Amino acid sequence: MQLNEKVLEQKGLKLYPAPQPVGSYVQCIRTGNYLHLSGGISVNGDESYYGKLGKDVSIEEGQRAAAAAIMNRLAVIQGALGGFGALRKIVAVNGFVNCTPDFTDQAKVLNGASDLLVELFGPEAAHSRSAVGVVSLPLGVAVEINMIVEIDPEAMEA
Amino acid sequence: MQLNEKVLEQKGLKLYPAPQPVGSYVQCIRTGNYLHLSGGISVNGDESYYGKLGKDVSIEEGQRAAAAAIMNRLAVIQGALGGFGALRKIVAVNGFVNCTPDFTDQAKVLNGASDLLVELFGPEAAHSRSAVGVVSLPLGVAVEINMIVEIDPEAMEA
Amino acid sequence: MQLNEKVLEQKGLKLYPAPQPVGSYVQCIRTGNYLHLSGGISVNGDESYYGKLGKDVSIEEGQRAAAAAIMNRLAVIQGALGGFGALRKIVAVNGFVNCTPDFTDQAKVLNGASDLLVELFGPEAAHSRSAVGVVSLPLGVAVEINMIVEIDPEAMEA
Repeated sequence: MQLNEKVLEQKGLKLYPAPQPVGSYVQCIRTGNYLHLSGGISVNGDESYYGKLGKDVSIEEGQRAAAAAIMNRLAVIQGALGGFGALRKIVAVNGFVNCTPDFTDQAKVLNGASDLLVELFGPEAAHSRSAVGVVSLPLGVAVEINMIVEIDPEAMEA
Repeated sequence: MQLNEKVLEQKGLKLYPAPQPVGSYVQCIRTGNYLHLSGGISVNGDESYYGKLGKDVSIEEGQRAAAAAIMNRLAVIQGALGGFGALRKIVAVNGFVNCTPDFTDQAKVLNGASDLLVELFGPEAAHSRSAVGVVSLPLGVAVEINMIVEIDPEAMEA
Repeated sequence: MQLNEKVLEQKGLKLYPAPQPVGSYVQCIRTGNYLHLSGGISVNGDESYYGKLGKDVSIEEGQRAAAAAIMNRLAVIQGALGGFGALRKIVAVNGFVNCTPDFTDQAKVLNGASDLLVELFGPEAAHSRSAVGVVSLPLGVAVEINMIVEIDPEAMEA
């Protein structure tokens, strides 16, 4: 796929180096034509990406948190593939929204992730998705997202 | 696999057209010999499929909600494959039960999904499964289920 | 991979026969070069593996619960493969931590699982991982973990 750099600029988003894992796990595993990505969280130095939907995070802030988690995952994919030329399909996006028991707009929050993927890569970035509400997330972040993507190993850049 | 139509009838269940996605995601992605299905929710016009286990939804209602989520996912599979002849294995069923902190019968609730699959398709529909309790789900539904299934692309109907 | 038996001994851990499923699902499904494992829970006859992090389970106890869930999953893998010689990669480890809304150390708890895998099998057991907090789990256990592993079917023992 081709990432549309202009969309990044318009949104004031920037790709950054892949985050380092903090335990005995790694940010992604390649198996055959797939990358399985660890859960990525919305940590970007911006306080609004912490907290609970339905309490101290608005839906709009939650959407930005979901976008931040995707940027975090794209950094990992870019690091693993040397770019996005070898990215063929976004197979699955599983989103976990830190929220209160009465919050029911998990899908709207995760649209901040899904919409960004399609804006950046075009309609072929459409993906299967799950959106659930969870009682808490690591470090108190608002959103965590894991992904499975299909790659073309022959198109990987060095 | 062959779906046993008589079981559907006996249970008063009906297959319906695949639901439309409501965002930048799609109901399923095919990759190689697999379909990855988005999280399907127990929305069927029946109020008893909303709410929380341990509070306003009984275990029996939760089992019907789990069955409704499976019917919803089967609609997607049927739409993608043109029937069930190309369905080879139910690889994974991941179930999320909307519940209170002290509810611990998630497995019983999800049996409403697992049992239905085996009743409809026979023992070869046995699958791996996860059952967890979540603080909230989209629209306030009682159950959400995503799936991975193995298919035989050569057996797909037009 | 080779399981280091000495590490098991040092830790006082023991492999046991694969647990039986309690519904229409099975403990794992093989598809191609993969095993998809059902969610395994931290049930071992030890009460400290029940309960909620942030309330009645300490982080250290949670780490032991995560290790117990991994031992439970390794029993399933051993049963399916006839040993660990055909185990090639730990692709994904998805961990669900039963916790209170203000508990944010899910990653630390799951390190009890990730670290054990690397101690038992060496660095090639590094894996992708998700860690989320959930409001409740089946039977009230502290930790549930599902996994996807890559296998070499030709190396399977009878």
